[in-house]
Amino acid sequence: MITVNVDLGDRAYPIHIGSDLVGKTELFAPHIAGSSVMIVTNTTVDPLYGDALRGALAPLGKKVSTVVLPDGEVHKNWETLNLIFDALLTEHADRKTTLVALGGGVIGDMTGFAAACYMRGVPFIQVPTTLLSQVDSSVGGKTGINHPLGKNMIGAFYQPQAVIADIGALSTLPGRELAAGVAEVIKTGAIADAAFFDWIEANIGALNRCEPEALAQAVKRSCEIKASVVAADEREGGLRAILNFGHTFGHAIEAGLGYGEWLHGEAVGCGMVMAADLSVRLGHLDEAVRKRLVAVIAAANLPTRAPALGDARYMELMKVDKKAEAGAIKFILLTRLGNTLITTAPEDIVHATLAATI
Amino acid sequence: MITVNVDLGDRAYPIHIGSDLVGKTELFAPHIAGSSVMIVTNTTVDPLYGDALRGALAPLGKKVSTVVLPDGEVHKNWETLNLIFDALLTEHADRKTTLVALGGGVIGDMTGFAAACYMRGVPFIQVPTTLLSQVDSSVGGKTGINHPLGKNMIGAFYQPQAVIADIGALSTLPGRELAAGVAEVIKTGAIADAAFFDWIEANIGALNRCEPEALAQAVKRSCEIKASVVAADEREGGLRAILNFGHTFGHAIEAGLGYGEWLHGEAVGCGMVMAADLSVRLGHLDEAVRKRLVAVIAAANLPTRAPALGDARYMELMKVDKKAEAGAIKFILLTRLGNTLITTAPEDIVHATLAATI
Repeated sequence: MITVNVDLGDRAYPIHIGSDLVGKTELFAPHIAGSSVMIVTNTTVDPLYGDALRGALAPLGKKVSTVVLPDGEVHKNWETLNLIFDALLTEHADRKTTLVALGGGVIGDMTGFAAACYMRGVPFIQVPTTLLSQVDSSVGGKTGINHPLGKNMIGAFYQPQAVIADIGALSTLPGRELAAGVAEVIKTGAIADAAFFDWIEANIGALNRCEPEALAQAVKRSCEIKASVVAADEREGGLRAILNFGHTFGHAIEAGLGYGEWLHGEAVGCGMVMAADLSVRLGHLDEAVRKRLVAVIAAANLPTRAPALGDARYMELMKVDKKAEAGAIKFILLTRLGNTLITTAPEDIVHATLAATI
Repeated sequence: MITVNVDLGDRAYPIHIGSDLVGKTELFAPHIAGSSVMIVTNTTVDPLYGDALRGALAPLGKKVSTVVLPDGEVHKNWETLNLIFDALLTEHADRKTTLVALGGGVIGDMTGFAAACYMRGVPFIQVPTTLLSQVDSSVGGKTGINHPLGKNMIGAFYQPQAVIADIGALSTLPGRELAAGVAEVIKTGAIADAAFFDWIEANIGALNRCEPEALAQAVKRSCEIKASVVAADEREGGLRAILNFGHTFGHAIEAGLGYGEWLHGEAVGCGMVMAADLSVRLGHLDEAVRKRLVAVIAAANLPTRAPALGDARYMELMKVDKKAEAGAIKFILLTRLGNTLITTAPEDIVHATLAATI
């Protein structure tokens, strides 16, 4: 087991990474202070890992309940969130009740937001079961739900007590979801660590084959990088925005197609292709680097061509991005491997990128 | 104009108290950094003070929008909150958009929660137009909405940029709402400042007649006391719970009758009578002090007899109070004027209090 510490002062927490962790009582024990625990999971994950988690919690002598939500990004909304509140209130959960998120990014984001809001804040633990959530959404405290007019528009910055990333859980992950996670791994290398990007290129086959050593290394390095960015900028005042490389276009794809049509990681994969194209067009990035990036995205079995939503729709959707200010879209561009630039772009150049990548 | 500063480090903010403040541009100017403002108000308050506020904001050259919500505690729910999110997204509000809450506690709590959650946090200003919100709900950063199973169960601790408490706005306040505000003034004196409690007894007539000097003094001293309590315990780890004197019973009354049947302040007024009865029964409080408290509550035209919900229902409702732990109800009791004690109580004594006060 490897542990990465996220250094956020009195909100610091550990990320434990390894095989067969979901059943380890000793990883949960230090983080559950109250007398009850509410597991939040979904219809897909509960049959796979729910019993192992309940088995790990049983020796602690707490009251353990489970709320099982419908699976999928399309359910990341208020109605589903409210199922968690209903369960908490029905079970008389109090301010010391610990929520445990067992599932992917949607479960983690909704459970974290429920924890942030229930009685104005209760503790929670993340047990991410997808690669995407292990490398990305369980690190950094971003929680929330979607609104019909924009993704993750309603939420909170709220840190977990601990993250327990069980690499073993990835063995049951569908290929599409594995690839979606690799997208965020590629992104992390591209924006912050050229050597890690080289490693990803060399190990993309092992990642695609779900080899545990390669996955553990990818999760560890991704978490380390994200943890250091988040520690420097917890509430996204500046630096943290670089983590959104590929996300401005990606969020537009997700919203434009309807949430759930493409996986978040697929949209980010394609969004990176689009952001790299824009980076080259604006003279910030070498064409050779763009080609390397597109090649590794394609090798990860991710889409590299954007859906035809219409240019006007893309622009409209990107203007409601959280990074936009007074309607001006802020793009995160690549300048070289490991380095980024945040800037606006002339609208005709953005149109040229759309024309070239759709 | 008087200013009380709430000392919360980098979340510190001023409370300005005085007459005719809602139209003063210079009070808003320092707190609006972005290019747009969204006023959140309701169908009762907008016709009274909406134009004055828009007039104050106009010279700042910002884009100003208004969202008008239905009036009343019964609307303090997700559906109404979502009207704010709808308006923000439709207007392309960004992370620097400032929300301005123009109204009573319901508007303040919902606007503050919307500000806490929209894009994970945007700035907001409180312009409380009821006595209750001026003395209580605009100080301390508690925001949120109700759930059918419990009041204020979903929310956040989130501080405003400033509070602008216009005493002039109280001239249009219905008598019942004025009394509801006086309930929190009485509470503040009772729990924290015996001399202020004496002052309230001596000035209850002036407060009932809505005399501006008396109101300004009541708002100022209540805000000072609450500000000092909140500064010592922002997230209700301990001391802050004393502010909930009368609220354990009061919340049960509100939830049991259905939100909106009794005003929050009315329920707190009656809840203080019940908490004082329990304090005497448990041997913590002199009967003479209880009588003084009941007399001033009655003089403020507040109810002093509790509605007959049934003992079992009272117990059930109090067990979902946010201060409860593992089903044990925590009561805030009075030991003398200016001093409190937080403790559990034997169930038969609570039943005796219910029998004596219903």
